[in-house]
Amino acid sequence: MSVLIVGSTALDSIKTPKAVNPRLLGGSASHAAVAASFFGPVKLVGVVGEDFPQRYVQLYKRHRIDLRGLQTLPGKTFHWAGEYEANMNNRRTLKTELGVFETFNPTLPEVYRDAPFVLLANIAPALQHHVLNQMRRPRFVAADTMDLWLNVALPDLLKLLKRLDAFVLNDSEAQQLTGEDNVFVALKKIHRLGPKYVVIKQGSHGSILSGPQGLFICPAYPLRKVVDPTGAGDSFVGGMMGYLAAAKGPIDRHIRRAMTYGSVVASFCCEGFGLQRMTRVTRGQIDGRVKELERLTRF
Amino acid sequence: MSVLIVGSTALDSIKTPKAVNPRLLGGSASHAAVAASFFGPVKLVGVVGEDFPQRYVQLYKRHRIDLRGLQTLPGKTFHWAGEYEANMNNRRTLKTELGVFETFNPTLPEVYRDAPFVLLANIAPALQHHVLNQMRRPRFVAADTMDLWLNVALPDLLKLLKRLDAFVLNDSEAQQLTGEDNVFVALKKIHRLGPKYVVIKQGSHGSILSGPQGLFICPAYPLRKVVDPTGAGDSFVGGMMGYLAAAKGPIDRHIRRAMTYGSVVASFCCEGFGLQRMTRVTRGQIDGRVKELERLTRF
Repeated sequence: MSVLIVGSTALDSIKTPKAVNPRLLGGSASHAAVAASFFGPVKLVGVVGEDFPQRYVQLYKRHRIDLRGLQTLPGKTFHWAGEYEANMNNRRTLKTELGVFETFNPTLPEVYRDAPFVLLANIAPALQHHVLNQMRRPRFVAADTMDLWLNVALPDLLKLLKRLDAFVLNDSEAQQLTGEDNVFVALKKIHRLGPKYVVIKQGSHGSILSGPQGLFICPAYPLRKVVDPTGAGDSFVGGMMGYLAAAKGPIDRHIRRAMTYGSVVASFCCEGFGLQRMTRVTRGQIDGRVKELERLTRF
Repeated sequence: MSVLIVGSTALDSIKTPKAVNPRLLGGSASHAAVAASFFGPVKLVGVVGEDFPQRYVQLYKRHRIDLRGLQTLPGKTFHWAGEYEANMNNRRTLKTELGVFETFNPTLPEVYRDAPFVLLANIAPALQHHVLNQMRRPRFVAADTMDLWLNVALPDLLKLLKRLDAFVLNDSEAQQLTGEDNVFVALKKIHRLGPKYVVIKQGSHGSILSGPQGLFICPAYPLRKVVDPTGAGDSFVGGMMGYLAAAKGPIDRHIRRAMTYGSVVASFCCEGFGLQRMTRVTRGQIDGRVKELERLTRF
């Protein structure tokens, strides 16, 4: 089954202690869509400006991503610039130019509205609502977010939580949202806000699911070298939703393995700048790391 | 088989935002010995002063801990006082009075010298050497440490590493020892210093083993409430060594499960001040949480 993904489609300029990479393909929807594309069909909703390089359109196409929901508008593509410190954990935003995203208000192509799986990747909650409003009867809706929306759009986000099956956020966002240091108490509080499934991302420490079948502790794939962690969280949720959409049967039967696949796809994301490593990965390599994670956690 | 444990035997005064608890039974050897006692016989090496409460001797005895290596010397018992912040992660030492530990130089009872498993719990590396020198042919030797010894006794510690089968330390100590942010690179570097097995403790994120069979990612047991984390790391390594000493067959066959048992014992440690919760736990409850961890990590 196909997964519809809405989020940001951006150009990222990323500086690390070892390199500077201007105008990489980035944005939450780009990372999530490429991650999901390893498992089945993806329908992308986004907007780019007239400066968007044709080679990035080709990249999406090589991943067989449906681009009928990708608008090109007069103006510039969303541009984010950031810098990482030596340990790759601390990130500083150098520039955010919204460009054509400032006025983005998509009308979904008719063929998109029946997509059974919907991923509202990180973007303004108002836009997540706007897209969800146009969907007919999605089977499973998940959303990601970021600290910015907790600060500037909390009422919209709280309304969105009531419309979701799954909510994905990182540990510091969970703490900010609930006022709880303890991640397991935070999970309980987030369930009360609406979602049946809550996933808390913990970076190199993996992630935690709380759902109808209780908790699942999902490992991160061990990486000796992190080149660029930008988009790892988006890749995680994209891989998870892509796997879920491709799996047959109840969500509960597949969601743990789906998270593990998300975790592995995110590990590949971290091994290159932007989408450079991700676009060279094969499904076989992904399966291989999932098998490895099984061995690394068995006791 | 029995495990010999040397380390500190102390009185801990612990302050948290919710309570003040003076003169609890503490010290690395106390926590490790009680933790190991759930699995088999334990021989304790330590020293206390004349002020050491008789009820704590009784507590050791209830856990069938061999006390022939516990000396009582004129003077005061080692006393540590510390304070935790609200999130229980940041700890501040308020007082350290070495007391009788200042001159402790134990001669092991003859019956101790053949113990097949040796745990050199956190204490000065010179003392860890001194005890190890008296052992005849231990089958498996593990040591724990702390940042203090990296700062003030690094040459002694480096010499010790060459005499160990297993070295256990936390992630910030691993970073300090190797200069490496990445835990998997740090593990490789620590192997080069001597130990065949290296275990890195990551608090509520669990722990990681690197050994002849590769990596093992060991989960922490999910706790909704942490009352007092003092001694959790000591309980972890004590539980691990206790389980290993009780298991039959090669180390590699049991070390992953041993770590999981250590992880569970440490979770009980965190649920009470000092050893208050640990001393009321049953082996059945420990087995129950290990089974639960199996379910929480399966995918």
